Amino acid sequence: MTEITTARPGSSLTSAFDIPRPPGLTWYVQSRMPVGYEVSLTRGLLNPANPVLARSVGADGRGTVRTLVVVDRAVDELYGPGLRGYFDAWRVDAVWKVMPGDEETKNLDQVVEVTRAMTDMGILRRTERVVVVGGGVLMDVVGMAASLYRRGAPYVRVPTTLVGQVDAGVGVKTGVNHGTHKNRLGTYFAPEVTLIDPEFLRTVEPRHIANGLAEIIKMALIKDGALFELLEENVTRITNHALADCGAAMSEVVSRAIAGMLDELEPNLWESVLERSVDYGHTFSPSLELRADPPLLHGEAVAVDMAVCLALAVGRRYLSEGDAHRALALIAGCGLPLTHPVFTPELLEVGLADAVKHRDGLQRLPLTDGIGSCVFVNDITADELARALEFVRAYADGARADGPGR
Amino acid sequence: MTEITTARPGSSLTSAFDIPRPPGLTWYVQSRMPVGYEVSLTRGLLNPANPVLARSVGADGRGTVRTLVVVDRAVDELYGPGLRGYFDAWRVDAVWKVMPGDEETKNLDQVVEVTRAMTDMGILRRTERVVVVGGGVLMDVVGMAASLYRRGAPYVRVPTTLVGQVDAGVGVKTGVNHGTHKNRLGTYFAPEVTLIDPEFLRTVEPRHIANGLAEIIKMALIKDGALFELLEENVTRITNHALADCGAAMSEVVSRAIAGMLDELEPNLWESVLERSVDYGHTFSPSLELRADPPLLHGEAVAVDMAVCLALAVGRRYLSEGDAHRALALIAGCGLPLTHPVFTPELLEVGLADAVKHRDGLQRLPLTDGIGSCVFVNDITADELARALEFVRAYADGARADGPGR
Ligand SMILES: NC(=O)c1ccc[n+]([C@@H]2O[C@H](COP(=O)([O-])OP(=O)(O)OC[C@H]3O[C@@H](n4cnc5c(N)ncnc54)[C@H](O)[C@@H]3O)[C@@H](O)[C@H]2O)c1
Ligand SMILES: NC(=O)c1ccc[n+]([C@@H]2O[C@H](COP(=O)([O-])OP(=O)(O)OC[C@H]3O[C@@H](n4cnc5c(N)ncnc54)[C@H](O)[C@@H]3O)[C@@H](O)[C@H]2O)c1
Repeated sequence: MTEITTARPGSSLTSAFDIPRPPGLTWYVQSRMPVGYEVSLTRGLLNPANPVLARSVGADGRGTVRTLVVVDRAVDELYGPGLRGYFDAWRVDAVWKVMPGDEETKNLDQVVEVTRAMTDMGILRRTERVVVVGGGVLMDVVGMAASLYRRGAPYVRVPTTLVGQVDAGVGVKTGVNHGTHKNRLGTYFAPEVTLIDPEFLRTVEPRHIANGLAEIIKMALIKDGALFELLEENVTRITNHALADCGAAMSEVVSRAIAGMLDELEPNLWESVLERSVDYGHTFSPSLELRADPPLLHGEAVAVDMAVCLALAVGRRYLSEGDAHRALALIAGCGLPLTHPVFTPELLEVGLADAVKHRDGLQRLPLTDGIGSCVFVNDITADELARALEFVRAYADGARADGPGR
Repeated sequence: MTEITTARPGSSLTSAFDIPRPPGLTWYVQSRMPVGYEVSLTRGLLNPANPVLARSVGADGRGTVRTLVVVDRAVDELYGPGLRGYFDAWRVDAVWKVMPGDEETKNLDQVVEVTRAMTDMGILRRTERVVVVGGGVLMDVVGMAASLYRRGAPYVRVPTTLVGQVDAGVGVKTGVNHGTHKNRLGTYFAPEVTLIDPEFLRTVEPRHIANGLAEIIKMALIKDGALFELLEENVTRITNHALADCGAAMSEVVSRAIAGMLDELEPNLWESVLERSVDYGHTFSPSLELRADPPLLHGEAVAVDMAVCLALAVGRRYLSEGDAHRALALIAGCGLPLTHPVFTPELLEVGLADAVKHRDGLQRLPLTDGIGSCVFVNDITADELARALEFVRAYADGARADGPGR
């Protein structure tokens, strides 16, 4: 697993200026950090008969264990009593910390607040856990705090939004905004376990459900044709309540989305590979998110980006017009936008140029190669961008004229 | 390297509450993050004829490359012109950031300052480097900033103190103090390369040289008898100038210390193993550092801790009295303290109890098993601590009576 060498490969930085004496003047340190965590889909997480959450903090109902529970304010109002009752039943001495879970409060101060709560309770890093219950914002803030506290303390994630359950909660990224920059500061830090209970989705607002659906549609488009069809068949039925009830179809939607996400993330947890199919819909959307006023949710910007990418794929004959129209109908059917006034050909060019910077000089633009698979292209022209935008606008205008569902 | 399973091992958190549907309800994510870096001992780092530093930031003297250079204020005054001249010669467009390098400024605000400088210059994470030039404080602050900036940006370390060159500069830990807690927040984040030029030591104050020697003596005591003898033979000659001149003996001292440190750190970069011989001298010293007034330097507290540990080893017959006296003479000969007024038997007990907490319930106290090797014990008693303290005091009183060197 580990090796030190003092031999000098050809590419070494050393030169005639080395100190020419043993026992060795350039050391090459090599190691691999093992990372492992569990993502579990479970029902009745707050039912005292369900031991899953208790076990995740080391409780067995006999001895008392301590834990720090950091809860989104909105979630605390809705589920606070249930959480407290559950922890009481399992003799978990839970120190409670309620925090706002909005994008505006996703900053370093909130991270410091969490670490201060850890210090105040004198958390024992080897045996006591931090549990974070909330949306993607709180996942990111508390995950970052856990990663920084004494260089890493174990934590458990309980995501309560759809974005949290299929995206923010299942990977290893943490982060906060800084200045005007989204997720400018952050770490890669895995939880011990992520516990997903769809019941939390019952109280999530429709706009935030749609926000999460955008990421699920993304997974369907780039790698899971069966998921696409499942979504298509159920598009009028996917509501917060249906997701919370978690019948056969909804359970399959959520679990396929998670499985697909993990499948894409896992070989590339630290994003060393720059061609990432999960970047689908994430090429032009950052520029849009920056400029839209009133602000868009992340998934809404991703939807507008995906619409353009579908049209780009049509232009390249990777996708039939019919399939593009199906996909656009699904996006619109989920209550997501297909176009946005600031999304001009010029802005698309700017967005692509920014992406090229972040992708080390190449576009590496993921496009659908038929619904359910993905191809990367590096030579999209300004002309293609303009035509793609027209294609989407034409569809959207037609769809508006025809009514929803087209 | 990577594997997802949906099978359920016996120890799983899942239960009857699982959602009983495919494609899988508990996912086990497993991966290994590869980490690699280089530590190079080189002379004439700022001599334009030496390409090592230029290469580390991607410069070849032809095209212009940009880099952010973060320099300790004291170092900038002494070596600023040399650094600037070097970078000019190699056509490195260096954005300069001068920062204080004192323990009191080792805080999160300074980390944010560095990330802000990175944002301001629009550093390109894949091609442009941050170079940190300074002591251990600046290594830790800038290393943390680099690890947080967009979840990790490559950086190059140029340590300029002895502590930096044999300790803070060669591992992967970063960190800052928070509240009254030393290194409370931090990360594990390797540089691309650490470049060590002993010439910087010429201007380091004797007290800070002694501070670094404490860590070198530690390495000698726990794993390198030859290094111990080398130190013993040269004890009266180890000065800032001698280290900077880097003759045969000094070069061997520094390189053996680095090699020993890497050898201990590398199999345990993330400190998952709790029995760490590099914790020698670091069991009682944190309590002492907290309470000493005027404050001690870290290495001074380590020296007082090592003295007690030598005496503990004598009490257990791991070490002869003669060897203990040799080691105490070496510590004192390097200008380091052997005792401290606040170091009472009671404080030792408190310190040991704290260490037990951090070492997951066991003392895991490293002691010398003869000079140059190490053994761990778990059953040191209050009585032994008191006797050890007496042994050191008796030696120190005798040494004072006899004059230095005994
Ligand atoms: N780390 C990652 O890999 C990753 C991936 C995707 C998104 N993210 C981040 O996630 C954030 C977006 O997450 P989000 O969409 O969950 O936003 P969010 O966390 O702000 O939650 C949205 C709103 O829903 C409320 N809420 C949460 N749970 C609820 C519930 N069960 N019932 C009712 N209301 C509830 C919150 O208080 C908030 O007002 C962004 O900051 C994004 O950067 C991170
Ligand atoms: N990350 C790690 O693994 C690790 C290991 C050991 C120590 N540390 C940390 O390192 C810090 C101590 O480092 P330090 O002892 O280098 O302290 P330091 O960085 O404060 O430097 C000591 C003093 O020397 C000055 N200085 C630096 N280089 C100089 C030079 N060439 N000539 C003259 N003056 C110079 C600095 O301005 C400062 O005033 C502590 O904060 C400690 O926690 C970290």
